[in-house]
Amino acid sequence: MNFLARQKKLREQLASAGLDALLVSHLPNIRYMCGFSGSAGFLLVTEAGSVFLTDVRYDTQARDEVKGAKVIIARKAVLSALGEWIGGRTKRTKGWTVGIEAEHMTVAERKRLADLLPSGLRLRNAPALVERARMVKDDAELALIRTAVQLGATLFDRALEVLRPGVREAEVAAEMEYAARRAGAEEMSFPTIIASGARSALPHGRATEQTIAPGGFVVCDFGVILAGYCSDQSRTVWVGAASGAKAGIEEARHAYESVKQAQEAAIAAVRPGVSVGEVDAAARKVLRKAGLGRYFTHSTGHGVGLEIHEAPRVAAGQKETLQPGMVITIEPGVYFPGKW
Amino acid sequence: MNFLARQKKLREQLASAGLDALLVSHLPNIRYMCGFSGSAGFLLVTEAGSVFLTDVRYDTQARDEVKGAKVIIARKAVLSALGEWIGGRTKRTKGWTVGIEAEHMTVAERKRLADLLPSGLRLRNAPALVERARMVKDDAELALIRTAVQLGATLFDRALEVLRPGVREAEVAAEMEYAARRAGAEEMSFPTIIASGARSALPHGRATEQTIAPGGFVVCDFGVILAGYCSDQSRTVWVGAASGAKAGIEEARHAYESVKQAQEAAIAAVRPGVSVGEVDAAARKVLRKAGLGRYFTHSTGHGVGLEIHEAPRVAAGQKETLQPGMVITIEPGVYFPGKW
Repeated sequence: MNFLARQKKLREQLASAGLDALLVSHLPNIRYMCGFSGSAGFLLVTEAGSVFLTDVRYDTQARDEVKGAKVIIARKAVLSALGEWIGGRTKRTKGWTVGIEAEHMTVAERKRLADLLPSGLRLRNAPALVERARMVKDDAELALIRTAVQLGATLFDRALEVLRPGVREAEVAAEMEYAARRAGAEEMSFPTIIASGARSALPHGRATEQTIAPGGFVVCDFGVILAGYCSDQSRTVWVGAASGAKAGIEEARHAYESVKQAQEAAIAAVRPGVSVGEVDAAARKVLRKAGLGRYFTHSTGHGVGLEIHEAPRVAAGQKETLQPGMVITIEPGVYFPGKW
Repeated sequence: MNFLARQKKLREQLASAGLDALLVSHLPNIRYMCGFSGSAGFLLVTEAGSVFLTDVRYDTQARDEVKGAKVIIARKAVLSALGEWIGGRTKRTKGWTVGIEAEHMTVAERKRLADLLPSGLRLRNAPALVERARMVKDDAELALIRTAVQLGATLFDRALEVLRPGVREAEVAAEMEYAARRAGAEEMSFPTIIASGARSALPHGRATEQTIAPGGFVVCDFGVILAGYCSDQSRTVWVGAASGAKAGIEEARHAYESVKQAQEAAIAAVRPGVSVGEVDAAARKVLRKAGLGRYFTHSTGHGVGLEIHEAPRVAAGQKETLQPGMVITIEPGVYFPGKW
């Protein structure tokens, strides 16, 4: 990963954002900017260079991983060490405006930080500079995401091997997660969703001890993290024969086919310069025509990368336009409370 | 779980905290107070009663799970629905001071909320009322934690079966996590740590593709979530014969025995009325006497329950006193960069 180039680009954006420095506190943003993959730290990016602060637990790891930033291991609270670093350089930092990541920093953290800083220094809610940079993946990232998605896709094959009437949802998840780990995944990118029967009407129906019954839908939604990058895949299967005279089978088939067509329409709409709102609209139009519009209760998709949900949101009315290098999911769905 | 009693106790604390209402936004706090286990929502606790707001994805789930609060399903952003709910009741809410969970709410969320609220309504950083209530577990919680810990403990047995020279760290983790899932765990309570060789000096050394070599320590730190409650267990093993004339073996044995004694001393210090700082000091004293004080770089332990890390912190100087019903970990450790 070219961390130096990423930091350089960010430094060049500071002035036009009205900032002397940006305090990167969101862990995926930190990882993107300097490579640190631990669970505590702050990266301060200034026009003259970057400094990364973490605590003693990450001493060895930070020295191994962090690129393009001076590493400081705090013997006390990391925020205090940051305050000291800035306070100890008042010649340079006097009158600074420091951007904070307002979507990620808590109210309490901001207050502690403000109390630690020398007077005359201002904190300002920064625009989402790192998130915007992260939207467009470089070649190295695309290769990692592709590898993660390929690993993730093999898990659906595994699911099909074990998903049978009488098997518990959690057993299916267990087999998929075991296969993921064996294949090198660091962890799942979100709690595995195996939602059968009436639970298939829950958009976020995590696998439970419920036994899968014949003659109904099972929603499978799952992903892995590999080398830090996420995969995300959603598939719906019908358990048992999906034809014949059984009550409701035609309605179920209509719902399934409509969602498939909605997904295909959204995928067909994807190209550079198109807004993500238009991609969402393409899926929504198909489902509305099929009389299922009101059962499509969530958005069509989202960006995916170091985080399972990241910019852009592929949702109604969103203006962001697609650019080469963006990675998004297309996963429309319809949910009928109490059915199948 | 007695959600009504928990909310009643919280309501009784509002006035003395100078609040007309508390906006509970931290998901484990929401789960503790009303039973909702999804990933998006707000619980507003007022003296007259509670209201829970979530989005359409959680329609069915919220109606199933939430106890003691009116459920509102937002057709737009949940925060906007909350603003409308408060704004639509100005007769009742005029001049209110609403507490927010400043340790969890982001700066941006707070700003959006403030912009949505009618004038004359104040937001105030609330004390950690729910976290303090959660510190002392009731009998139902203790039973769940005990069950989670018992399941978690079986994973160490599994680790001992597969942990051999030549096996990859990630394989050990895979077998443990598979066993956890098969036994009913919802997920691991944190990324499984299997840190061998020089990686055993990383306090947070997540399992990697590294092959375990003979003649060194392997740190195993792992836990499960079962029915929402976490287990946390840390064990260090030596791979291969731990005796004989091999260089450094006596030093390794000294470190191992000292940590064990430190743990036992801390456990012996645990009783109602003792401060958590004294528990930490008991472990620290043993390691200092053994000449290893400076390698014990983190705190002795932490509370565990709905979250893997919760109050109280069992750390140097912490004043919180132990009460019946508290659940804490005791996990001192020493870390030697580059060794074993």
